[in-house]
Amino acid sequence: MNPVFAGAVKVDDIFWSRYIELVRCTIVPYQWEVMNDRVPGVAKSHAIANIRIAAGREKGEFYGKRFQDSDVAKWLEAVAFCLATRRDPALEATADDLIETLGEAQWPDGYLNTYFTLAKKGERWTNERESHELYIAGHLIEAAVAYFRATGKRRFLEIMMRNADHIDAVFGPEEGKLHGYPGHQVIEMALAKLYEATGEPRYLTLATYFLDERGKRPHFFELEAAARGEPGDLGPFGAKMFEYNQSHLPVRGQKKAVGHAVRAVYMYSGMADVAALADDESLAEACAALWDDVVRHQMAVTGGIGQLEWWEGFSRDYDLPNDTPYNETCASIGLMFWAARMNRLAPRGEYYDVAEQALYNGILSGLALDGKSYFYTNLLDVVPEEVAARLDAEYSGAARRGWFPCACCPPNLARLIASIGGYVYSTSESALAVQLFIASSANVTVGGVGARITLSGDYLRDGRMSIAVEPERPARFTLMVRIPGWCKGASARLAARGSAPAPLPGEVVDGYLRVEREWRPGDRVELDLPMPPRRIRANPLVRADAGKVAIARGPLVYCLEGVDNGPLLSDITLARDPKFTTAYEPALLGGVTSIRGEATRSAGGWDGALYREADFAAVPVGIKAIPYYAWANRGENEMKVWVNQG
Amino acid sequence: MNPVFAGAVKVDDIFWSRYIELVRCTIVPYQWEVMNDRVPGVAKSHAIANIRIAAGREKGEFYGKRFQDSDVAKWLEAVAFCLATRRDPALEATADDLIETLGEAQWPDGYLNTYFTLAKKGERWTNERESHELYIAGHLIEAAVAYFRATGKRRFLEIMMRNADHIDAVFGPEEGKLHGYPGHQVIEMALAKLYEATGEPRYLTLATYFLDERGKRPHFFELEAAARGEPGDLGPFGAKMFEYNQSHLPVRGQKKAVGHAVRAVYMYSGMADVAALADDESLAEACAALWDDVVRHQMAVTGGIGQLEWWEGFSRDYDLPNDTPYNETCASIGLMFWAARMNRLAPRGEYYDVAEQALYNGILSGLALDGKSYFYTNLLDVVPEEVAARLDAEYSGAARRGWFPCACCPPNLARLIASIGGYVYSTSESALAVQLFIASSANVTVGGVGARITLSGDYLRDGRMSIAVEPERPARFTLMVRIPGWCKGASARLAARGSAPAPLPGEVVDGYLRVEREWRPGDRVELDLPMPPRRIRANPLVRADAGKVAIARGPLVYCLEGVDNGPLLSDITLARDPKFTTAYEPALLGGVTSIRGEATRSAGGWDGALYREADFAAVPVGIKAIPYYAWANRGENEMKVWVNQG
Repeated sequence: MNPVFAGAVKVDDIFWSRYIELVRCTIVPYQWEVMNDRVPGVAKSHAIANIRIAAGREKGEFYGKRFQDSDVAKWLEAVAFCLATRRDPALEATADDLIETLGEAQWPDGYLNTYFTLAKKGERWTNERESHELYIAGHLIEAAVAYFRATGKRRFLEIMMRNADHIDAVFGPEEGKLHGYPGHQVIEMALAKLYEATGEPRYLTLATYFLDERGKRPHFFELEAAARGEPGDLGPFGAKMFEYNQSHLPVRGQKKAVGHAVRAVYMYSGMADVAALADDESLAEACAALWDDVVRHQMAVTGGIGQLEWWEGFSRDYDLPNDTPYNETCASIGLMFWAARMNRLAPRGEYYDVAEQALYNGILSGLALDGKSYFYTNLLDVVPEEVAARLDAEYSGAARRGWFPCACCPPNLARLIASIGGYVYSTSESALAVQLFIASSANVTVGGVGARITLSGDYLRDGRMSIAVEPERPARFTLMVRIPGWCKGASARLAARGSAPAPLPGEVVDGYLRVEREWRPGDRVELDLPMPPRRIRANPLVRADAGKVAIARGPLVYCLEGVDNGPLLSDITLARDPKFTTAYEPALLGGVTSIRGEATRSAGGWDGALYREADFAAVPVGIKAIPYYAWANRGENEMKVWVNQG
Repeated sequence: MNPVFAGAVKVDDIFWSRYIELVRCTIVPYQWEVMNDRVPGVAKSHAIANIRIAAGREKGEFYGKRFQDSDVAKWLEAVAFCLATRRDPALEATADDLIETLGEAQWPDGYLNTYFTLAKKGERWTNERESHELYIAGHLIEAAVAYFRATGKRRFLEIMMRNADHIDAVFGPEEGKLHGYPGHQVIEMALAKLYEATGEPRYLTLATYFLDERGKRPHFFELEAAARGEPGDLGPFGAKMFEYNQSHLPVRGQKKAVGHAVRAVYMYSGMADVAALADDESLAEACAALWDDVVRHQMAVTGGIGQLEWWEGFSRDYDLPNDTPYNETCASIGLMFWAARMNRLAPRGEYYDVAEQALYNGILSGLALDGKSYFYTNLLDVVPEEVAARLDAEYSGAARRGWFPCACCPPNLARLIASIGGYVYSTSESALAVQLFIASSANVTVGGVGARITLSGDYLRDGRMSIAVEPERPARFTLMVRIPGWCKGASARLAARGSAPAPLPGEVVDGYLRVEREWRPGDRVELDLPMPPRRIRANPLVRADAGKVAIARGPLVYCLEGVDNGPLLSDITLARDPKFTTAYEPALLGGVTSIRGEATRSAGGWDGALYREADFAAVPVGIKAIPYYAWANRGENEMKVWVNQG
């Protein structure tokens, strides 16, 4: 199936419209100001200046990470998605001018990268392990494709086609070319998009080449190091380098997710793209094995991945600490990219179950409700004084930050949210699928007939959605509606045009309710996905969660926050039957359903003692849980997802 | 009160005699071989060679840490205590020759240190923050005093008096001397011992000077750095340097234990020594405040201290992780040193409660039952694959190691165990105290009369001890018997000479049962300290132990080990009433009382899922707990002290 492009989906959702407007009205302008170094008190960016200097428009020196350009690329992609659904001449003029600047910074041969233009001119294409040259190219290509699809303007696309053509001239199997691949993946996804946008098969071939070259021996990164006169240089991760960037094995032979989590899921996304576009079965099989590994062994309940801080990556199976994980926002975003692509390859509700799990929890938690501060790591158990003592306190903390020296996450959030409509629907020749429950409408073609599909309802409030299907004329096709894995007692009724709702014929296959019939204008499906509060347990192999439960409701994982429950959340033990009640609180955190329940705290009388003989005295307390994504919007305080269960 | 010297106490205890013989017959010879680099497969020592080279007996270069000499010092101290209770001509000859070698390595001015003799000749006394020169001197002085008291031989003592006199000429308030103090404390304790052994008051004055100079501004370590031409050098801990080595405040103003734990408790021990010997009340008050801080906020249930790996030291209050603490063996040994000195200052049962807690748990855990391998860090929750991934895996692990590049702990264990008799009794003019329940006898003077005291019984087996008091003639004094804080229902009866046991008059004051009467030869106290298994809870402010209990019996903390309970100990939840039973198992781990009880494990049926809705199904299992000190003697496996409590 093919996803319906975000620009073709009009989101009109009580939850998501607020976020989309936040991107449009706050985040995009805010990040532009930050990248222009006009926001005091946040980490310096200089990203726009780097481009202007490389273009010759300004004097100055490069500043920042070698991948600083990628922040701009992701921001431009967010702008593209904003423009796709509502034109904004001023914003478009800013973007167009920035695109022109990029064009001016491009080398005659198509090369485009400010770090290697300004700071390390003679070193381009000599250290792909660390240089991020292909990473920057990939993000710029993605932005260019989005900008083209959103605005119809070809300038940015043409710049990046020239860049891609240059890369194609540098890398490849032919003699004289570099037989290499990126140290940080993303170009694979990008080239797949460029192929789809342009129809140029060389781009798909190059994406496939980058994937299949990986893991070959002698190892490209060793050959590169030798060519630089640095034989034996394995970089900061030493012998773990090959795992770190997933070049330890040919990708078709990889079964375990290892190494840097963002690199990993970006690569797996590219693998799924190529598998779909080239109908490549062994790549699809590798993707499926890796998927199972991640979601069965290495994923936090919030959809966070990458537990080890020191390499921002995967750990041992079931090593899922709550107080010290990494769970980078970008990694969960990448997991969602991958999930969507797995669903494209072979639709299964499980893929969007995970996408939804990541989206509503470990991704949105990266963003403050006001759009102006961000979590880089997303912890599940936070005590402010403990996280302040972390070695990576600059990237972890009890409070979101306005920017980071390595600022990958903030613009990644912007582009994802701006494109969220693109994850709602997919179509094939004979089917129309609803993947996420975001109130919206789209004009699609299915069964050879144009049709309008409209989702309405307030999913997070009550799990009730109405799906109106309006083909131009009666048409036979299958409506596929994902029934979330978390849902018990889902039901659907069909209100055929002018009739009262009646039980819907259809069955759930691979997580999708499938209704094949002749659909007529005015048909409507009423979906009821009951979402009472529930408790989640982790597999006993997850040591960190032993004796604990996570509270959830629908797709939302909940947490206890100090502001509602006082300090020392570790002392709270949920009652065996916590008698949960829910209340929609419109004034709380932008409008959330809170959960209250019964628990105990230990009795006092310690008189300063550190240890004493157990007496198990406890006092009853009420707890209040809020959605995890919304925590840390009421000042620094404790937060806990996994709560002791009595 | 003054402790009765170890050499005057004949230990005849089923538990401790085995350990003392292990030191004598195995550990002392083994460590000698290691320090001579004749044990394959362990970290290189070279400590004896360094001394022989410095003495001119061998050619070669210095190898090892700059404090490598201190390993030899502690080993010599262990030898001294071995010789104190049983002469061994061969061992004594080895020691005497080594002492001669030290004398040959000594500079004409009394300086003695192989690192600064061989490797950094011109740099002596230029960087006391890092050099460990006073640390080595301190350990050698302690060894020399012990050797003198054990053998009556003065040679080693005289060498170290010359060394102390040299130090006294280098440091002090007079103009032209260094107004400084050690980066790693121990010299304070050592000088106090030297003062007691020689009666020379300059040594006590110098100890007091080293304490009182600390924390003054401008800061000695900054002045030192400037004198070296390295102004601004704060060492590896940067701005934390002052806290790291407890030079952030004058010692009399220190209320919080901070920094490197071994340095801290060695210094607090020296403070308590000076407080006792100089009758210094404000030092005693500082000691009391620091004591309260450590035992009420910063001590593991095993008597482990120093929770932070990165500086081997104290953390925030109540930050007592089980899987990642440091709990260095030397730090618990130092805590016991300090506890004994606090008891000397003002006898309180609490001090020896803590000494006993450290001794039987976090100290003895440092030693394998065969004496040939050692834990440097003492974790409370070990999963082999997790500790193997620790950054400090060289010093932490699921298995003890034969030696370490920094080998402070192994000889520290040897000297402590060899001197254990010295912790059993104290006397004052009018009182005789029993602090630890180690079967032994000693000839003491109390109430102006010579008396023999004999403890018999098997404390760890049943908590029943018999205390026979035999004054040369009837004498009035107070017998003080510590009633352990963990004990409920302690009782004591007096069997006056020739009479049947009868209730003992006396009351418990500050943790000691005090019986003042006229004691006559043949009097006997029968003490019953019931020790059923009990569960310990930690103060709720200790987040790591929330919802968990530790199993204990008498002074012993117990643990679950994988070999008895299978893997995945985190999945075990103790029953609300675990119905503990005990069994003495003579063939297990040298003879231990094991504890069995009822628990549950989570039910299966996960089918590879990582998360699922909570169902709380559980299956009953039995658990078996063993004393913590004895774990890791049956191969690498999991271990857990704090167990989930249902």
